[in-house]
Amino acid sequence: MTTWGESHGPALGAVVDGCPPGIELSEQQIQPFLDARRPGQSKFTTQRQEPDRVKILSGTFEERTTGTPISLMIENTDQRSKDYSEIAGAYRPGHADYAYDAKYGLRDYRGGGRSSARETAARVAAGAVARLVIPEVRITAYVVQIGNDAIDREAMNLDTIGDNPFFCPDSWAAKRWENLVDEARKDGSSLGAVVECVAEGVPAGWGAPIYAKLDADLASAMMGINAVKGVEIGDGFGAAALRGEENADPMRPGENGPEFAANHAGGIAGGIATGQPVVCRVAFKPTSSILTPVDSITREGEATQVRTKGRHDPCVGIRGTPVVAAMMALVLADHKMLHRAQCSS
Amino acid sequence: MTTWGESHGPALGAVVDGCPPGIELSEQQIQPFLDARRPGQSKFTTQRQEPDRVKILSGTFEERTTGTPISLMIENTDQRSKDYSEIAGAYRPGHADYAYDAKYGLRDYRGGGRSSARETAARVAAGAVARLVIPEVRITAYVVQIGNDAIDREAMNLDTIGDNPFFCPDSWAAKRWENLVDEARKDGSSLGAVVECVAEGVPAGWGAPIYAKLDADLASAMMGINAVKGVEIGDGFGAAALRGEENADPMRPGENGPEFAANHAGGIAGGIATGQPVVCRVAFKPTSSILTPVDSITREGEATQVRTKGRHDPCVGIRGTPVVAAMMALVLADHKMLHRAQCSS
Amino acid sequence: MTTWGESHGPALGAVVDGCPPGIELSEQQIQPFLDARRPGQSKFTTQRQEPDRVKILSGTFEERTTGTPISLMIENTDQRSKDYSEIAGAYRPGHADYAYDAKYGLRDYRGGGRSSARETAARVAAGAVARLVIPEVRITAYVVQIGNDAIDREAMNLDTIGDNPFFCPDSWAAKRWENLVDEARKDGSSLGAVVECVAEGVPAGWGAPIYAKLDADLASAMMGINAVKGVEIGDGFGAAALRGEENADPMRPGENGPEFAANHAGGIAGGIATGQPVVCRVAFKPTSSILTPVDSITREGEATQVRTKGRHDPCVGIRGTPVVAAMMALVLADHKMLHRAQCSS
Amino acid sequence: MTTWGESHGPALGAVVDGCPPGIELSEQQIQPFLDARRPGQSKFTTQRQEPDRVKILSGTFEERTTGTPISLMIENTDQRSKDYSEIAGAYRPGHADYAYDAKYGLRDYRGGGRSSARETAARVAAGAVARLVIPEVRITAYVVQIGNDAIDREAMNLDTIGDNPFFCPDSWAAKRWENLVDEARKDGSSLGAVVECVAEGVPAGWGAPIYAKLDADLASAMMGINAVKGVEIGDGFGAAALRGEENADPMRPGENGPEFAANHAGGIAGGIATGQPVVCRVAFKPTSSILTPVDSITREGEATQVRTKGRHDPCVGIRGTPVVAAMMALVLADHKMLHRAQCSS
Repeated sequence: MTTWGESHGPALGAVVDGCPPGIELSEQQIQPFLDARRPGQSKFTTQRQEPDRVKILSGTFEERTTGTPISLMIENTDQRSKDYSEIAGAYRPGHADYAYDAKYGLRDYRGGGRSSARETAARVAAGAVARLVIPEVRITAYVVQIGNDAIDREAMNLDTIGDNPFFCPDSWAAKRWENLVDEARKDGSSLGAVVECVAEGVPAGWGAPIYAKLDADLASAMMGINAVKGVEIGDGFGAAALRGEENADPMRPGENGPEFAANHAGGIAGGIATGQPVVCRVAFKPTSSILTPVDSITREGEATQVRTKGRHDPCVGIRGTPVVAAMMALVLADHKMLHRAQCSS
Repeated sequence: MTTWGESHGPALGAVVDGCPPGIELSEQQIQPFLDARRPGQSKFTTQRQEPDRVKILSGTFEERTTGTPISLMIENTDQRSKDYSEIAGAYRPGHADYAYDAKYGLRDYRGGGRSSARETAARVAAGAVARLVIPEVRITAYVVQIGNDAIDREAMNLDTIGDNPFFCPDSWAAKRWENLVDEARKDGSSLGAVVECVAEGVPAGWGAPIYAKLDADLASAMMGINAVKGVEIGDGFGAAALRGEENADPMRPGENGPEFAANHAGGIAGGIATGQPVVCRVAFKPTSSILTPVDSITREGEATQVRTKGRHDPCVGIRGTPVVAAMMALVLADHKMLHRAQCSS
Repeated sequence: MTTWGESHGPALGAVVDGCPPGIELSEQQIQPFLDARRPGQSKFTTQRQEPDRVKILSGTFEERTTGTPISLMIENTDQRSKDYSEIAGAYRPGHADYAYDAKYGLRDYRGGGRSSARETAARVAAGAVARLVIPEVRITAYVVQIGNDAIDREAMNLDTIGDNPFFCPDSWAAKRWENLVDEARKDGSSLGAVVECVAEGVPAGWGAPIYAKLDADLASAMMGINAVKGVEIGDGFGAAALRGEENADPMRPGENGPEFAANHAGGIAGGIATGQPVVCRVAFKPTSSILTPVDSITREGEATQVRTKGRHDPCVGIRGTPVVAAMMALVLADHKMLHRAQCSS
Repeated sequence: MTTWGESHGPALGAVVDGCPPGIELSEQQIQPFLDARRPGQSKFTTQRQEPDRVKILSGTFEERTTGTPISLMIENTDQRSKDYSEIAGAYRPGHADYAYDAKYGLRDYRGGGRSSARETAARVAAGAVARLVIPEVRITAYVVQIGNDAIDREAMNLDTIGDNPFFCPDSWAAKRWENLVDEARKDGSSLGAVVECVAEGVPAGWGAPIYAKLDADLASAMMGINAVKGVEIGDGFGAAALRGEENADPMRPGENGPEFAANHAGGIAGGIATGQPVVCRVAFKPTSSILTPVDSITREGEATQVRTKGRHDPCVGIRGTPVVAAMMALVLADHKMLHRAQCSS
């Protein structure tokens, strides 16, 4: 997958190359995933209105993939570039503004340009294609923590994810988060979040020992999402506090291969899938686009203060949830094909 | 870098391609890094004795790099393959044995074959070359937690890292860990750990917006180390609990570019270095090679119990510390060259 | 560069990633190169009318490159898909129809789908961007042979390339080719051609010893153009008939580095540029889209005969000339950056 | 495949990654291919004596591939570095000396360092592994021209390739070449050659439309061999002189898929194999290592003359023949796996 596009350009998109041929694919199959990520759907997300309609420009014939590059395009419609005139000359602290300028000597400051989370729309579109390549896998992503407030694992019910605007599997937590997020929004502040993603049905064997380790590729894919600062597989940082016998995943003979008594490993050992669910957790920072003035400097190096008006998500982790699922799908689709390349006969 | 080799083969190594020419390089410059990772140096690491002598087979002329591939080889000397006969027919729970067999249909069970942490010796050797490519950067790695026992950040002194066998920057913690690790060793158990790595001197601008994001490449590099289950940049998972104004890194004009009042971002914003120290934390699980018997199955699918005799590290995170530093060096050397390719004039 | 698009889809395009920042770039700078390749400009090329207007969808800001992916799109306007209904069920001999079906099990038969030479419009657009990355290099491409009729090297004058519809540097040959190509066109036949491309100003040192050899990358780039069947550097196949002393390129001290008394090597030795002009020759086959019926089979495996009506180039080598120049520019731009990555200080 | 090593270092080698598991592999299976390329076997090749014994250092277990990187090493034994002292300070015209120095600022002048054809021993070793991945394919390479003297296609008999020291399929030509090559050798001169390579049994479908085109990858692989200056597929440059109806490969229904009445395409259309034999021709220049003095310059830029003493091949195309076959095997093995990744089910 190659993505392109800025927040305030005419369009953005992705080119998906190497997709297997003969898969049924139409815009209708991609749109629901974009809709899940789409802004402006509740007061808990940015009020920018984007229909995020995807167009397939190549790679299909009679609604089937042909095996050639699939070009996906989403037009930008609701840009308000004037919102950004104020930050053209100063760096938003915690944002990528300064780093872009340091690297390139110029930047498209409108909406963050390439560093905007709008780029993730292209990933979600590409991820929808990837899901079709791995029909044997069921991917679910959900928010397990907003700010300091985590869900209760005992109360977790994945069937309720769609019942609230937070992709939250714990209806009590979802209730609490309404106030939490709404207050942050009113304060012009922002909140971090932790998103968990589970992929069931990944066959034992996908992955690789050193290069293209399944966990390393997931780490790269997830850390590459805007605002992500941490990635864990299985018990993750929690595993550091365990002893070997607590962390082992005992095996027993089962009907279809081994059965495991635990899944501390998160479905991956030595870079290769074990056949258990692949479990990954991703930390989103609170966005730096806040109304509170923060010390900063201008492009010329003078002291100033910056507050970001524009329209922003009070908690980017929420709309990041479909992005996490999309990245999981993209990594797994690659690994299905890599495994088939080396190990099918 | 391409590595090759198994725990119990004749040798292992790495090929480093693309190294800039004219850099002074001899075996003496690589050896100290291998010595830091070398087993058998204290009772807190595996008792396998390996001199880990590196040989440079190509890519230098009169002790300078020529710009052509540098082949590094380390011979294995102290294999005891018979230790592993017992596990040839059964899978060690939590280890990669089952996943390898599921993928390839066969595996080199001696010492874990390719999944052995001995492969990381090749990375350390390659990392030593990478450090020479980035003389402007100073990399330090140290253990901040073993099992449940974390260092005291107030007592942290990086100058003391070399004074104890744990790469620990807190001498009180180092004292406590002696007992902690020794007991685990005597019990035939194992402990997890968290390693932190800081790179100072990384210029603002290294990295990239979407592909080759500096944080995504670090995440991949670190998660690809044996036994690693989590990676954080800057505040990482802690950032998820912060509000935007707490997480901002305010800027002020300084002598040489901006000065930052905090480094929650860990030196990376939008995939690009900000000029602050790059900070990364890595979670190592406790190894699955323990003496406690754990339920498992044989290759034929029968129920059994497995305990791993052999010689093992009670806490792989300790010897993982130089590996973390090496991966940091390799990623940064790549990014220095990538940045120069696109943005120098 | 990643290209996408089919002959009869809504559009085609290219994504150019890694372009240096700060380069002036607007659609006006790309369009002339597309115009040179554009169909329907004389009776010697296909009569399909395509304006081939390029749109820049991302990667620039205020008409300068930002360093982020540049998305280029060209809309298709003059598709006549019904022309192809006849060949939906049978394979055109010499065309890629059968190979596509064998690979993918389905194909977009309209205009050859992805195998259409229309894909090369995207390369030409990308090549126009690449030229801006290497202002020190001057690239010229021209036809040196059509069918059996080669130019006279003594009469060659590169200034006359633009004076005839064949990119021919020999005005006498251009005169003869008018009849030659026109007759082939009237016969519903087609002709092969040889295109030569010279890049002056390539600094000694671009290229690499084994991987990313400059000549290997040029060979790949040129052989990847539709209808190309052969690539030569310098004397090419002619060098096979020479003795070592005839093939040597003697050197003498010059004002700015060495001066060479000959350029049998075509400016490349050991995969690395010598500072002499890089010279490359490319053989185009006659297209298989001809009116003469040829034995073939249907998708069901029955014997049939196929003649390709549609609108076709009597000699694809002519319009292939700007494509050859574009590929040269793309390869050299990559190598400028690769060299800078490894060898600048 | 990654190769490493110089002419006069301690060893050279290749790392083959991604090889399918479970393939029988021992040093005995690789050695015969190295023996075919080995120097010092007749007076028509260099008199350097190298046993070229290959060692497998990793990637196999009980003589089967494990799916992990296979490290192959060949030790250098017969270096005579003093032969080269004379050229340390001056550039051999036509050789890569000057280009290396221009790129890297230093070079290993002993035997050409990395630019030596000894590097191809590593490719031949890797190619021997690749052949085992594609047992369905039969690869044959042979010399069809030395200097100006081509074989008679009517007299061609592939069974006689092993009966002469030239890999020549025409016994009359082989007879003539004895004098031709011997005279060049006595004169201290060198000769060019053309090598042809045919791969039978390549299934229709291997290859790809634009990226990883089978012909583009072959062109890159072949042009990347030392001393190669031209590559053709099928009729190659000859196709440029044909008309469309002459160049078509008519199809007829056959027992197992279509039968073709000709193979002008050399088994590849649109970058994808057609199921016909893949045919490739490769032009080797005469080496620049000759005894005749040629004008040159010193490293300091002074005029001088250079003659290369050392021990050299009078016609590198001869020993290049097994290298061409090895590169064909490596490319086809990659494409088998790439095709399987995308198109198997």
